[in-house]
Amino acid sequence: MTGKYRAVQYGCGPIGCSVARLAAQRADIELVGAIDIDPDKVGRDLGEVIGLDRRLGVTVSDDAAAVLAQARPDVVFLTTGSSLKKIFGQLTEIVKAGANVVSTAEELAFPWRKEPELSAEIDRLAREHGVTVLATGVNPGFLMDTWPLAMTAVCQEVRQIRVSRIQDACPRRLPFQKKIGAGCTLEEFQSLVDAGTLRHVGLAESIAMIAAGLGWELDEITDEIEPIIAETEVKSPYLTVKPGQAAGVKQTGHGIKNGKEVITLDFQAYCGARESYDAVYITGTPDMEVVIRGGTHGDIATAAMVLNSVCRVVAAPPGLATMKDIPLVICTAGQG
Amino acid sequence: MTGKYRAVQYGCGPIGCSVARLAAQRADIELVGAIDIDPDKVGRDLGEVIGLDRRLGVTVSDDAAAVLAQARPDVVFLTTGSSLKKIFGQLTEIVKAGANVVSTAEELAFPWRKEPELSAEIDRLAREHGVTVLATGVNPGFLMDTWPLAMTAVCQEVRQIRVSRIQDACPRRLPFQKKIGAGCTLEEFQSLVDAGTLRHVGLAESIAMIAAGLGWELDEITDEIEPIIAETEVKSPYLTVKPGQAAGVKQTGHGIKNGKEVITLDFQAYCGARESYDAVYITGTPDMEVVIRGGTHGDIATAAMVLNSVCRVVAAPPGLATMKDIPLVICTAGQG
Repeated sequence: MTGKYRAVQYGCGPIGCSVARLAAQRADIELVGAIDIDPDKVGRDLGEVIGLDRRLGVTVSDDAAAVLAQARPDVVFLTTGSSLKKIFGQLTEIVKAGANVVSTAEELAFPWRKEPELSAEIDRLAREHGVTVLATGVNPGFLMDTWPLAMTAVCQEVRQIRVSRIQDACPRRLPFQKKIGAGCTLEEFQSLVDAGTLRHVGLAESIAMIAAGLGWELDEITDEIEPIIAETEVKSPYLTVKPGQAAGVKQTGHGIKNGKEVITLDFQAYCGARESYDAVYITGTPDMEVVIRGGTHGDIATAAMVLNSVCRVVAAPPGLATMKDIPLVICTAGQG
Repeated sequence: MTGKYRAVQYGCGPIGCSVARLAAQRADIELVGAIDIDPDKVGRDLGEVIGLDRRLGVTVSDDAAAVLAQARPDVVFLTTGSSLKKIFGQLTEIVKAGANVVSTAEELAFPWRKEPELSAEIDRLAREHGVTVLATGVNPGFLMDTWPLAMTAVCQEVRQIRVSRIQDACPRRLPFQKKIGAGCTLEEFQSLVDAGTLRHVGLAESIAMIAAGLGWELDEITDEIEPIIAETEVKSPYLTVKPGQAAGVKQTGHGIKNGKEVITLDFQAYCGARESYDAVYITGTPDMEVVIRGGTHGDIATAAMVLNSVCRVVAAPPGLATMKDIPLVICTAGQG
């Protein structure tokens, strides 16, 4: 590739904006279109919408078909939602327009287990139109699937795998603290769980990807959510968690094979965690313990994963791709 | 792939034996031939040569051409040496026989910078014969190239990268301790360096692979070797290092770009290291620090990398491949 990749930003919410901001910095990307349905964004320059101090000469439009037809992108960054069913129509429209897709939709990261028919349909359409579809991000997309799988390369045998992502929410923004239920009573916390707003989406997809990578047939995948209850008062710059209140959330995913738990994903985000870190623990030959000290900044990493995947997606054979099967994604900001 | 991969073990030294032992355990591999020139091994059953308590029905032969013609392997494990020039004849013979190659030859891990003509010739021959050639192992092949590159996926920018591999030699076998100069006077240490027997081969290849992955043009790659001098007496089960003697070796590789060191590989193996670990330090957006606690067992990991790469190599497009461009290598012992 000598020229730039022509890219359309589809979805200008918080994640889409962070992807587009990074895209605007990259020498290998030319933003050629932007799509969103929010009337406050439609008709404005993308540079302004994503908070740059310069115009990009790209107007946000709510007419996806027109943008795709006029912009003729190499790749579309699809960041409109988490649910495969909800983005399916948008996705197929892009594929039929002949553009590759890099999406942050969590359920698209490894949809083969939960949605085999939809997955097969996306794969078929992508092949028919000669394009590649990939979903990626920090989690799912890296920390709880690609990274642990990459570490197994040096193992002669893997019997069990556990991944922990522990985030101290205190330094994070208020919306993040609210999202994880910090400062809620246990009743309020349960209401958020019941409403489905507190759930991290993607544990099941990550477990399915790990299992597929290792060649394991799982009996079932389950997960549960519980509050992490403050024992002492915890203060963040934005709120105070009283003893007995929820300091945040612990969500645990389980992959069961022959009745035994072989994959455990442990996701914790709460105010007052002693340290943030990500860790992979492999039981096998040999055992391994790998730690990202200080953890991984989710918003930075998700945008990075999207942009760093572009060259791999464009070069990949047509179809529905997953992170476990494309070549190593590398920071390509220094390329081009 | 439903059947097994037919594999020939070419080179039955310590690394070749560890590769063949692992291959003999794997459900997805059938060992169909073995090549070595050592008269003590030729004519014996491979199972006996590699220390199994069972025969494999494969006789070690010194006639490579005959083995390749009769065994018709899908893949050959080429573990006869480190030097690209020395293995070049063996490699081309395998390629011309139509077999894929997974080698542990350090200089083949990323030969494009130091040996561009030989690399192009291997690539051309491999394409002509429809096979793929890859060299891998723990180092080069993973710890100081593939692994740090994989971690950059979550970075928006990488400005500098440093990898440390720190090994406490005390629990290792005597040959390893001798190899790293433990217990030598500084004069003896220098003689080993001058004789070339103390050098770890592969730092330059790992640096070149990292640079190519990140899209960096390097001015130069250098490295130097020095003794780690014992300050106090250190005892291993096998030997005693007196104060002032070499406790082991420190070898450092440098990748220079626009006059600035952007890649540093720090390899230390000595008796008395407080702990063994491998670590990646990235300076960029964000900074990252990733640690393999307790380090990575070299012999286990190299055999694992070879076997885990087989399915990727067989499926890869023909040519000279490197770890940075093939799909994620995963522990595939549970497959097949």
